[in-house]
Amino acid sequence: METSTIVKSDLEIARESVIKPIVDVAAGIGLSPDDLELYGKYKAKISFDTLEKLKTKTEGKVILVTAISPTPAGEGKSTVTVGLADALNRVGKKTMVAMREPSLGPTMGIKGGATGGGYAQVLPMEDINLHFTGDLHAITTANNALAALIDNHLQQGNELRIDQRRIVWKRALDMNDRALRKVVIGLGGPVQGVPREDGFDITVASEIMAVLCLASDLQDLKKRLSRMVIAYNTDRQPVTVEDLGVEGALALLLRDAAKPNLVQTIEHTPALIHGGPFANIAHGCNSVIATRAASKLADFVVTEAGFGADLGAEKFLNIKTRAAGIAPAAVVIVATIRALKMHGGVPKKELAAENISALKKGFANLKKHTETIEQFGLPYVVAINRFIHDTEEETKTLLEMCKSESIPAAVTEVWEKGGEGGAELAGQVLKAIDDKKANFAPLYDLSDSIEEKIASIAFKVYGATTVDFSTKAKKQLAEFEHHGWGVLPVCMAKTQYSLSDDPQKLGRPEGFTITVRELKPSIGAGFIVALTGDVMTMPGLPKQPAALKMDIDEQGNASGLF
Amino acid sequence: METSTIVKSDLEIARESVIKPIVDVAAGIGLSPDDLELYGKYKAKISFDTLEKLKTKTEGKVILVTAISPTPAGEGKSTVTVGLADALNRVGKKTMVAMREPSLGPTMGIKGGATGGGYAQVLPMEDINLHFTGDLHAITTANNALAALIDNHLQQGNELRIDQRRIVWKRALDMNDRALRKVVIGLGGPVQGVPREDGFDITVASEIMAVLCLASDLQDLKKRLSRMVIAYNTDRQPVTVEDLGVEGALALLLRDAAKPNLVQTIEHTPALIHGGPFANIAHGCNSVIATRAASKLADFVVTEAGFGADLGAEKFLNIKTRAAGIAPAAVVIVATIRALKMHGGVPKKELAAENISALKKGFANLKKHTETIEQFGLPYVVAINRFIHDTEEETKTLLEMCKSESIPAAVTEVWEKGGEGGAELAGQVLKAIDDKKANFAPLYDLSDSIEEKIASIAFKVYGATTVDFSTKAKKQLAEFEHHGWGVLPVCMAKTQYSLSDDPQKLGRPEGFTITVRELKPSIGAGFIVALTGDVMTMPGLPKQPAALKMDIDEQGNASGLF
Repeated sequence: METSTIVKSDLEIARESVIKPIVDVAAGIGLSPDDLELYGKYKAKISFDTLEKLKTKTEGKVILVTAISPTPAGEGKSTVTVGLADALNRVGKKTMVAMREPSLGPTMGIKGGATGGGYAQVLPMEDINLHFTGDLHAITTANNALAALIDNHLQQGNELRIDQRRIVWKRALDMNDRALRKVVIGLGGPVQGVPREDGFDITVASEIMAVLCLASDLQDLKKRLSRMVIAYNTDRQPVTVEDLGVEGALALLLRDAAKPNLVQTIEHTPALIHGGPFANIAHGCNSVIATRAASKLADFVVTEAGFGADLGAEKFLNIKTRAAGIAPAAVVIVATIRALKMHGGVPKKELAAENISALKKGFANLKKHTETIEQFGLPYVVAINRFIHDTEEETKTLLEMCKSESIPAAVTEVWEKGGEGGAELAGQVLKAIDDKKANFAPLYDLSDSIEEKIASIAFKVYGATTVDFSTKAKKQLAEFEHHGWGVLPVCMAKTQYSLSDDPQKLGRPEGFTITVRELKPSIGAGFIVALTGDVMTMPGLPKQPAALKMDIDEQGNASGLF
Repeated sequence: METSTIVKSDLEIARESVIKPIVDVAAGIGLSPDDLELYGKYKAKISFDTLEKLKTKTEGKVILVTAISPTPAGEGKSTVTVGLADALNRVGKKTMVAMREPSLGPTMGIKGGATGGGYAQVLPMEDINLHFTGDLHAITTANNALAALIDNHLQQGNELRIDQRRIVWKRALDMNDRALRKVVIGLGGPVQGVPREDGFDITVASEIMAVLCLASDLQDLKKRLSRMVIAYNTDRQPVTVEDLGVEGALALLLRDAAKPNLVQTIEHTPALIHGGPFANIAHGCNSVIATRAASKLADFVVTEAGFGADLGAEKFLNIKTRAAGIAPAAVVIVATIRALKMHGGVPKKELAAENISALKKGFANLKKHTETIEQFGLPYVVAINRFIHDTEEETKTLLEMCKSESIPAAVTEVWEKGGEGGAELAGQVLKAIDDKKANFAPLYDLSDSIEEKIASIAFKVYGATTVDFSTKAKKQLAEFEHHGWGVLPVCMAKTQYSLSDDPQKLGRPEGFTITVRELKPSIGAGFIVALTGDVMTMPGLPKQPAALKMDIDEQGNASGLF
């Protein structure tokens, strides 16, 4: 979000907001204190007993918030998600937010939160952006317990005949730490372990995060954990967590992390913030457990998925809907004039200046994403998320272009005004739902081959004309089908900056080829990752990390945190 | 703790116990719900505001529980700590427990908890032994954020001229993971960081754990963090966290971890479980913040320190008392007949059989520890912690030997009977306090040189006749005095199994030499570590890790956890 010297920081706005005890927020959705496990006064987990009881209730409608191909700064998808939910509550619709929880790594590195912004934020923002209720720490711990158990298995005789060159399970930290991307471990002689190459991913890229987010309950979680492939043995056969016999221990470590976290927006809309898998190596959606619970507790759930509609929304619609047994009632596509101008060819430094012709050119990117959502049989509304530098003329032009293409669109000012700034969007979304035009179906059948699934996405969602598979990927296609993994959906790993696999190709590229470099089995999560281009699973810190400005005062209040 | 087939597991006993809401336990020590930050119904952190208010209250008496030189299984020090506190409450003395919190690494590896045992346990044991309130995760995160910031500093131009061969800050995980002891990081070319040797410690061995445990409040915590030495520059001068400018960020990450955790024993005695530094590389005591808070909230505080009186108690009395401004009123020395027979030369497999002559011989170890406590000017009582295989004759013999040496002793049966089994011990401890014979003083002055401090401990506590310093250690003595670190107390790193630095020398060895191999500055913690022999700062997993037996049922109940 753009700021100027007179604009308050998100942290200042958050601290000046009135926050209600979470038991009061819970009471508004029919939950008693017995349904909650409190984490301080303003955060709570919902107990398994309560989740079980909710199963018999009828489901509310799910609204998915996605975006155009984003700029590096993001287009305010979380902010619109929060603002839309607040706006719906303002018009008397019982609404909840279901969002991803932030990773600490980026928090220490680059200014920018994952809890919305301005007056469309989730509270308590300090806690949520720091350790929150410890979910990510539990995932880190389970991930690394498994890694330690694998290396201990090698050290203690290697009964499973694991090929130490083919261990695919990596270690993880919730940190931006480039020096851990490629490491050699087990050095120092025979009592210090078996030397081998290894690497660390950021925790949100761990398959365990994806497993937690796609599991329907604790037993399903355990089953998914047991199926995770950790290595190949000397016969090139997959070795799983079940072979190692530690799925019970891992599930135990994740017991509390599997319960969704209840917090509130600045306007006291109840919000479940739970799970946050990477949107490249994984599917980029909050947990199935939380989305389902929210849909039982409210009449409307506003949720979001990572990056643009070609990535997060595609995965929400092809992967998460199947695991969760839910279908959205409508989709919101967030667009900013800034980003559309960038898609129209304006360099980053000149985005503040008015540029109608670039805006008109960049519109093609938005148009493609609306077509994608139409292919899934879903109604949508474009949310034009207003930024400070947007001119009247630009806004008018964009609205006119949408109108001429019969694209429903609403300007939102939720950063500045909270729910009030999302009133028009809320009205249009409700109208789209009332029109009952939703006729949702995933883009491909699970019985299609892996190759066919990838082609469906590349052609229909990205607009590619051909798909190439590397020699390695071709070999893997055959192997994966042989292992019985061909029935799983596909999770594409692709740059978020372009509809193609080349981040330089902005706007709406045409006539391009998608190259699948490698496949990766995420059998516990229940999908096959198809890697196109380089995928970053452990970010680095910038030259001036955000950590340098962070501090606490004597009462423990944070500063420098956004 | 010994078990037979008819004895219930600690987990079974814990689960069958009636646990009170923590707000009710808090009410008993004058704390209202507003003083607490709840973590579920049975755990709470005490807020900084409340800790501030407590400062003006008068202090209760602190009872330190220590032990003879232990066997690998431990002598039940935590169990006696809990049982004694329960026993004191039974006779109407308002008493609290202040203990260390467990590390997950050993939990996944070797059966055996850190929350007491049998009917002298702290609840909820499952939670405390798993993630508890996330303190250790926060410490791991702060430790690794610092490591990532150091490597990022190298990557971004190395303005501080850090000598990459002399980075002393290691990474940490709360895991037993031997393969991470010695690693090479930063591989993969220029964008992946600067290649260098590194290693991981278990989180409880991180200096940040010691810092958290010795800090008096949040501002002191930040000051201590800023003083931590992370590396030496190319001029061989120390580089600190303050030089890097990230003490505020680290303190922010530790904000909640710095608040003590309130739980309860099976008999509802309030217990603060907070901090758990290694007793070798660090001082092995729970936090100063918790011990102080407990002493303000109750008339008696029962606390413990790691390993035998030569290690944990020595460090409590020479290091923690100075940081905390407290002096214990009495000491309990836990002894078991099993361990004394081992000190008398009985091999591990034969410890179950009666052996009076070995018991008599091994008594020398206990005698030495009583003399150590006398040198600190403190009254003490020996707690003979009864085990199933102890014979009547052995118990009688040990009591008679204590009597003939004027050593006050009481048999405790707290594992089997809870507080009732600690009645006699409680009576004798109260008598020792009432006699007002305590005349506490640390063993050395801070103005003594590092060499003199080490000699004081080696001669007076261990019974050594000479202290040798390696060439490296001699050079470090001069360097450390030059850096102004000579005024700090010394934290000895020595095997817990012997009074000497050779784990094979059981009983009461005499005429031996202590060899100081190396010194390590823990300037944030505020002590100089003197390493004798090999010190393990990252444990490994056994051939059959405890993780293999862990599981959860559909309601999320744990099994296989002790």
